[in-house]
Amino acid sequence: MPNATPTSGTAPFPWEDRPTQPSPHLLWRYSGNPIIGRDHLPTSNSVFNSAVVPFGDRLAGVFRCDDRARKQCLHVGFSDDGIRWDLRQDEIKFASQAKGVRYHAGYDPRVVFIDDRYWVQWCNLDHGPTIGLAWTQDFEAFHQLDNAFLPFNRNGVLFPRTFDGEYVMLSRPSDNGHTPFGDIWLSRSPDLTYWGRHRWVMRPTGGWQSTKVGAGPTPIETEAGWLLIYHGVSTSCNGMVYSFGAALLDLDQPWVVRARAWEYLMCPREIYECVGDVPNVVFPCAALTDADGERLAIYYGAADTVTGLAFGYLPEIIDWVQRTSVV
Amino acid sequence: MPNATPTSGTAPFPWEDRPTQPSPHLLWRYSGNPIIGRDHLPTSNSVFNSAVVPFGDRLAGVFRCDDRARKQCLHVGFSDDGIRWDLRQDEIKFASQAKGVRYHAGYDPRVVFIDDRYWVQWCNLDHGPTIGLAWTQDFEAFHQLDNAFLPFNRNGVLFPRTFDGEYVMLSRPSDNGHTPFGDIWLSRSPDLTYWGRHRWVMRPTGGWQSTKVGAGPTPIETEAGWLLIYHGVSTSCNGMVYSFGAALLDLDQPWVVRARAWEYLMCPREIYECVGDVPNVVFPCAALTDADGERLAIYYGAADTVTGLAFGYLPEIIDWVQRTSVV
Amino acid sequence: MPNATPTSGTAPFPWEDRPTQPSPHLLWRYSGNPIIGRDHLPTSNSVFNSAVVPFGDRLAGVFRCDDRARKQCLHVGFSDDGIRWDLRQDEIKFASQAKGVRYHAGYDPRVVFIDDRYWVQWCNLDHGPTIGLAWTQDFEAFHQLDNAFLPFNRNGVLFPRTFDGEYVMLSRPSDNGHTPFGDIWLSRSPDLTYWGRHRWVMRPTGGWQSTKVGAGPTPIETEAGWLLIYHGVSTSCNGMVYSFGAALLDLDQPWVVRARAWEYLMCPREIYECVGDVPNVVFPCAALTDADGERLAIYYGAADTVTGLAFGYLPEIIDWVQRTSVV
Amino acid sequence: MPNATPTSGTAPFPWEDRPTQPSPHLLWRYSGNPIIGRDHLPTSNSVFNSAVVPFGDRLAGVFRCDDRARKQCLHVGFSDDGIRWDLRQDEIKFASQAKGVRYHAGYDPRVVFIDDRYWVQWCNLDHGPTIGLAWTQDFEAFHQLDNAFLPFNRNGVLFPRTFDGEYVMLSRPSDNGHTPFGDIWLSRSPDLTYWGRHRWVMRPTGGWQSTKVGAGPTPIETEAGWLLIYHGVSTSCNGMVYSFGAALLDLDQPWVVRARAWEYLMCPREIYECVGDVPNVVFPCAALTDADGERLAIYYGAADTVTGLAFGYLPEIIDWVQRTSVV
Amino acid sequence: MPNATPTSGTAPFPWEDRPTQPSPHLLWRYSGNPIIGRDHLPTSNSVFNSAVVPFGDRLAGVFRCDDRARKQCLHVGFSDDGIRWDLRQDEIKFASQAKGVRYHAGYDPRVVFIDDRYWVQWCNLDHGPTIGLAWTQDFEAFHQLDNAFLPFNRNGVLFPRTFDGEYVMLSRPSDNGHTPFGDIWLSRSPDLTYWGRHRWVMRPTGGWQSTKVGAGPTPIETEAGWLLIYHGVSTSCNGMVYSFGAALLDLDQPWVVRARAWEYLMCPREIYECVGDVPNVVFPCAALTDADGERLAIYYGAADTVTGLAFGYLPEIIDWVQRTSVV
Amino acid sequence: MPNATPTSGTAPFPWEDRPTQPSPHLLWRYSGNPIIGRDHLPTSNSVFNSAVVPFGDRLAGVFRCDDRARKQCLHVGFSDDGIRWDLRQDEIKFASQAKGVRYHAGYDPRVVFIDDRYWVQWCNLDHGPTIGLAWTQDFEAFHQLDNAFLPFNRNGVLFPRTFDGEYVMLSRPSDNGHTPFGDIWLSRSPDLTYWGRHRWVMRPTGGWQSTKVGAGPTPIETEAGWLLIYHGVSTSCNGMVYSFGAALLDLDQPWVVRARAWEYLMCPREIYECVGDVPNVVFPCAALTDADGERLAIYYGAADTVTGLAFGYLPEIIDWVQRTSVV
Repeated sequence: MPNATPTSGTAPFPWEDRPTQPSPHLLWRYSGNPIIGRDHLPTSNSVFNSAVVPFGDRLAGVFRCDDRARKQCLHVGFSDDGIRWDLRQDEIKFASQAKGVRYHAGYDPRVVFIDDRYWVQWCNLDHGPTIGLAWTQDFEAFHQLDNAFLPFNRNGVLFPRTFDGEYVMLSRPSDNGHTPFGDIWLSRSPDLTYWGRHRWVMRPTGGWQSTKVGAGPTPIETEAGWLLIYHGVSTSCNGMVYSFGAALLDLDQPWVVRARAWEYLMCPREIYECVGDVPNVVFPCAALTDADGERLAIYYGAADTVTGLAFGYLPEIIDWVQRTSVV
Repeated sequence: MPNATPTSGTAPFPWEDRPTQPSPHLLWRYSGNPIIGRDHLPTSNSVFNSAVVPFGDRLAGVFRCDDRARKQCLHVGFSDDGIRWDLRQDEIKFASQAKGVRYHAGYDPRVVFIDDRYWVQWCNLDHGPTIGLAWTQDFEAFHQLDNAFLPFNRNGVLFPRTFDGEYVMLSRPSDNGHTPFGDIWLSRSPDLTYWGRHRWVMRPTGGWQSTKVGAGPTPIETEAGWLLIYHGVSTSCNGMVYSFGAALLDLDQPWVVRARAWEYLMCPREIYECVGDVPNVVFPCAALTDADGERLAIYYGAADTVTGLAFGYLPEIIDWVQRTSVV
Repeated sequence: MPNATPTSGTAPFPWEDRPTQPSPHLLWRYSGNPIIGRDHLPTSNSVFNSAVVPFGDRLAGVFRCDDRARKQCLHVGFSDDGIRWDLRQDEIKFASQAKGVRYHAGYDPRVVFIDDRYWVQWCNLDHGPTIGLAWTQDFEAFHQLDNAFLPFNRNGVLFPRTFDGEYVMLSRPSDNGHTPFGDIWLSRSPDLTYWGRHRWVMRPTGGWQSTKVGAGPTPIETEAGWLLIYHGVSTSCNGMVYSFGAALLDLDQPWVVRARAWEYLMCPREIYECVGDVPNVVFPCAALTDADGERLAIYYGAADTVTGLAFGYLPEIIDWVQRTSVV
Repeated sequence: MPNATPTSGTAPFPWEDRPTQPSPHLLWRYSGNPIIGRDHLPTSNSVFNSAVVPFGDRLAGVFRCDDRARKQCLHVGFSDDGIRWDLRQDEIKFASQAKGVRYHAGYDPRVVFIDDRYWVQWCNLDHGPTIGLAWTQDFEAFHQLDNAFLPFNRNGVLFPRTFDGEYVMLSRPSDNGHTPFGDIWLSRSPDLTYWGRHRWVMRPTGGWQSTKVGAGPTPIETEAGWLLIYHGVSTSCNGMVYSFGAALLDLDQPWVVRARAWEYLMCPREIYECVGDVPNVVFPCAALTDADGERLAIYYGAADTVTGLAFGYLPEIIDWVQRTSVV
Repeated sequence: MPNATPTSGTAPFPWEDRPTQPSPHLLWRYSGNPIIGRDHLPTSNSVFNSAVVPFGDRLAGVFRCDDRARKQCLHVGFSDDGIRWDLRQDEIKFASQAKGVRYHAGYDPRVVFIDDRYWVQWCNLDHGPTIGLAWTQDFEAFHQLDNAFLPFNRNGVLFPRTFDGEYVMLSRPSDNGHTPFGDIWLSRSPDLTYWGRHRWVMRPTGGWQSTKVGAGPTPIETEAGWLLIYHGVSTSCNGMVYSFGAALLDLDQPWVVRARAWEYLMCPREIYECVGDVPNVVFPCAALTDADGERLAIYYGAADTVTGLAFGYLPEIIDWVQRTSVV
Repeated sequence: MPNATPTSGTAPFPWEDRPTQPSPHLLWRYSGNPIIGRDHLPTSNSVFNSAVVPFGDRLAGVFRCDDRARKQCLHVGFSDDGIRWDLRQDEIKFASQAKGVRYHAGYDPRVVFIDDRYWVQWCNLDHGPTIGLAWTQDFEAFHQLDNAFLPFNRNGVLFPRTFDGEYVMLSRPSDNGHTPFGDIWLSRSPDLTYWGRHRWVMRPTGGWQSTKVGAGPTPIETEAGWLLIYHGVSTSCNGMVYSFGAALLDLDQPWVVRARAWEYLMCPREIYECVGDVPNVVFPCAALTDADGERLAIYYGAADTVTGLAFGYLPEIIDWVQRTSVV
């Protein structure tokens, strides 16, 4: 049962089979993790939150590469297998379509293909963090639009298609620091410039997702609903822990949560996830499915330092969300 | 020289001449202040941030009337002279045009007349504070639109006319508490539902406006630019102090600050401004000008408890902003 | 309908009729407020949270009299009319019944008569604030027991009778500072030394009681249930505001809230309530009823500086709690 | 000189000899640490703070097993050697003896045998953290009593015998978050339901124990006094560090500290103690002694993620506490 | 017994006799308080912390006059009677003797005469608050030296004579905000440029002086020691309260506290002390004694808004400090 | 081009050639890092921030060795090769030259040779952290002077020569906790006892140095200016990260920054830098250059737990600072 719209066509799909040792976990990590190290670029301090999409017969992506001043930068990269990546040394240069739109620094990108072009969404620093938007058709030229929202906002994630002719974006309104709260909201736009009809989607609950929640990869359309992989944050006496879990949103009214798993899908456990510039972070920004909609590959930032890859089976995950839902 | 577009036609214009004793202040308070007391309604705890507009040959307004549970509520009121007000006992009931739009509580309203109707803007509590929007033509029936922005936002203030066919609103993005920061931003909309093309306008500087700044009454169009009366907040070891000052925005590009006075126009000094539910607050939400565009009457909340009225001459204020500008 | 157990016998009952001017308020203040000024004692900085009880044909009480070092002290006082008070210059000396019980400083007393003696409850500073307990029969000699609870606790209030042979006390667990949270709990004791069977009673809700709630005077037994007058605290950008309201607890299971008024009974409004060592505080610690159980006199601290007195009718208040209950 | 009451009879006693390489440390870790991993249960996120006791010819215990929602849960486990543990998959179900007693989640258990049964003490979440109490005789059925204290409290630890017929418990009053303060107190009870006669025991001092201190395993009775192994917390710019040390309490007046070592016994050093859900935590909840009262085995949580085991010689530790005491 | 070195010669000494009504207070306020209002200058927002000295047959002073932008400014003023003051409209212009010394804004001045000139000490904002120093001989020309100390420091107060050829200054090291801590320190200098030999003098204790303490007026030399009038701050849930008290420092080793009164001398009580830009502040910056060393006049800022004057008898105060000392 | 004044004569110079694998980093770590472990002394918890200088034909140093109570202590050590160190078990005993100078605990030392003796600078705890000063000629006897500055101060670093006869010291004024701000200042002294003529040097900018900056090793005199290696701190949601970078100060006016590199030189990356008592810290306290002024060896504390050593070429670093300067 192909219960997901495949996001991979002729593009490669990275995969490694589930380890034979029995494990209670739905996801397993790539054995060669991290797939991108912090020194990948001669100038990089870290390469982590990574947005990957099929691009012809290759994969392309936009990557957060903090430089050695620890300025957040966005770089383009390409891969023939989804595992070995070649990132461009130069920061993306955005050509602004509107006078007065500012690009100073960018982080935590997502990329989605809609209609005929790739849309990049990222956290844009412009008198405070908010959602930057740009499109490209070739991963060479990037055309920046106005910011979608007023500050303070982060984790803007577009759905991969329009609804009644409207673009739809999830985001996580925040404050100007290490925000200790955060719900997921949904907004609509006829043209990706003007946004409105905001709807509240979901809040933190408890445990691993007690402090804040935010959308992760582009939602995946399945027969069971939109599979939303999202990060959740808890706060210990030693700071925040970023894990991620999953929910199913209504296909037509995507601000309605149909099911939401009580447990996390993945929490920081490996040394490269627990140790680094920001310890105890797994932060997913992209997911690929195979042509059959069965297999899932998730790209995630680890410890805000390196990039990891994890695998799972979509039907298993969807079934688990529905079975363990607390909605 | 009528250097302001009069906002008063046949409607009454409240006025009291400047006291004969010389004063260094540009504004003077009405001698009968506060004009609306905290017990104005049988159920009110306080009546303060007040949005007043000409309405035929009377004045009408939307008033923040916290009830005795200290829930923030919006009430309609009318006056024949701008000083004695008759407020409706019942909260405004908003008829929502969009499914899923929520009105739970509202505060800090503004009202502006555009085209053929009155637009109410307020801080709407909907999973966090943001900018509520509704229109009325008779101050009886109120039609609520979607919230303009995502939370967290406060002090949304519409310009009284469109620019190139677009509605323009100032607002102050904030967080979910007693926000210790705040810039003024400007956003545009073709239809008052979808908003975008956000532009940063101004930040706190120092002294009385060192913590945050937010738009006050509807901007007043003058030959010198849009006169923006705005509140500024400073923070002492005993909490926040709300004063207000003035700036001039470019007539065509209203996100460009042409002049901004270094000093405040008014700070809390009277006992009803310094003592009350929130001490040391003067907070302007409405301003009227006379038919000649010479005289100015400002309605302001005092100590978050009662409503005050102050007067001044527009040309004096504009001249002072230009003379003392630090831009 | 005498719906309250009278707490006044031959003792005087202070009273002043409701002002003739119509008022929306259920309570009215004594026209000679404050009844006890801050300089009442030669050594006092302030005299405020006051616990008053009938004592033969007089009234007696325990008063919080901070001295000029602003150390919190407890003093005894007597009155022939409940309005003019004569406070003893010396602090209460507690004779400790148990080795190791410490009295360093005390504040916010309550006094209740059970069986054959008067029980004083107060906030006792002993490696953190907790509930001190002592008894007297003559307001001369005071016998201190062990603290009822572990720190951190405040606002311990005994019921005026036992339940199934057990003493019952309300309290508000807190932390070691200006606690920004606080629920009311109930605990039971066979002997006033060992306490247990703790039950949660109520939490802050919103508006005037959004930060914390704590029991005020000794609960008043009425046919409708135990009338609990309690303080509620809200927090503005300028600090905390202490108001008070009312609830009805089940007669037999006093941890069950039968009704709880949404609005406050009284909030700080008078200058002596809004201005003082801690602005914006009305804090009730004692209530007297007349022999008919009709009239109510409430002693409350104002601005943590002086003592006020307010009046109301019990049936009106009970009816209002029931009518406006949000439980 | 058997200077400790042995807590092990026919039950196994886990042990590994001191490494031959000279070390300045009084304790040494088990070479196979961690003895219980985070995936021990199919549903567990982590298994750490562990309360172990002799149980016939085996060892039994109550374990904190956070699930993958990161809800704190208590599970039973058994072992034939104290090193390899078999934990039950299901959470403990508490049968409540009192109406209204609530078990929502539990963590940081201790277990002690008194008279004829095993008493479990844990941090019980019931409108705030406090001390839950239950007994079992077979580690199958658990009977829950009322909470010992009002919130907010953690780290309740019973002494293994009564004093003058009274049960005695140590605890650490706290607040509702990651409490940045904490002293150890002692309370007494005739019946484990009603508690009183609270006595202050000790406060944080400096260095490794500068933020808060709390009792660890059940105190061990020795000729030199009650050996109290307790955790101490310091706070760096990167959060809290949990170490543990030791003190000797008076045999008859256990709230009197007779000796207290200036240094820690153990601090986080191994990778499984420094890296995990909460980095830099060693947290002891149980200690076993051999039949001669010579050897000591300490079970401790590591990084709030896994369970460790450490060994030492009681006489050495007691001597060290006495020699280096700062009391 | 003239037990104080008179600081007034031919200069006027402001005085008003103690009110005939008996009062427990050692100080009494001038009946015409405040002596300087907030609108004293056409440009002033407030005129409060005031440093007054005899100057020929007049009094001169340096005053903190915040302007209407609420920038802190220093102004000169003169008086023929110490009560009616004439302040210069222009800010003091400091001629800097050292390249690189910066004067941006100044507040909380003190003035002392040593040898042949008047030394001004103030809180100077130069990349953080610290102690500015300048001298004048005519209150026309002011010559600024280097800042005495590194930031962050406030309340620098020179002794009126040298010790073994060294100048001696008290100060209160702080942080860059509304510092919630603060001890008084003493430093020495051979030349008023280089400072060292720092000695700790005193810390906050409890009650009215539990948060921080700082020197007030220039210490007064008496036979009993240096009379140090100092401010003390306590913190309620509504912010800080500034009171002031007194101590006696050793005549030769002025970092040794010989006596320190437990109570305050004055706390905020009058409406102009409790209501204003910073409620609940009395802050003394200058004291005059009469030629007999009997009478004392204290200038103090009230509510950071206006200037007050209070009177007392030196011998009474010294006796009280010694009698009630807690050192 | 020998562009640095060599700080090593006959003393050994520790060195290891750059790894052959190409690396984008200017510095490389010693392959045997950490060179000093946390158990180096029988009593040490950690040995980290280390101040090393040539001392005859050996190297000597002052080391921060926290003991197992986690009290900060200073110890002397010697080495024949700069890599293997022999630290004295006893704390340094300072002989105080001035009555009243207190040594309680010391941390973060620096050592510099000026004229004929070695000057130790450290953070001295004396009613708050400030800069302690002492000299030795033999690393046996240490003579303590008065503290250089008032609290609160840290990271005092002397220049290795006088300027116009004055000693010059950098420092970082702070507060009494984990200070979230910090600029570098410069002060001068004719005699190392009295200090003044303070000049502001530099502030945090962004990225890796956005929270605070402080001087590291003794500045190195080069033809291009004083090479200042300094630490910079950024703050994530999981606490502070200490990295270090470099700037060039004017040779004659060392408070003037001539060049400052935008990137860091080194950030925490190795496991012993990222895991320990304070994760994510590299903190340099000493640097040695070879006789040719070409090669550089930097001693740094890692994770506040162990001591690391790193190498680089001075000309490369100087060139890089100049090339990438943002001044």
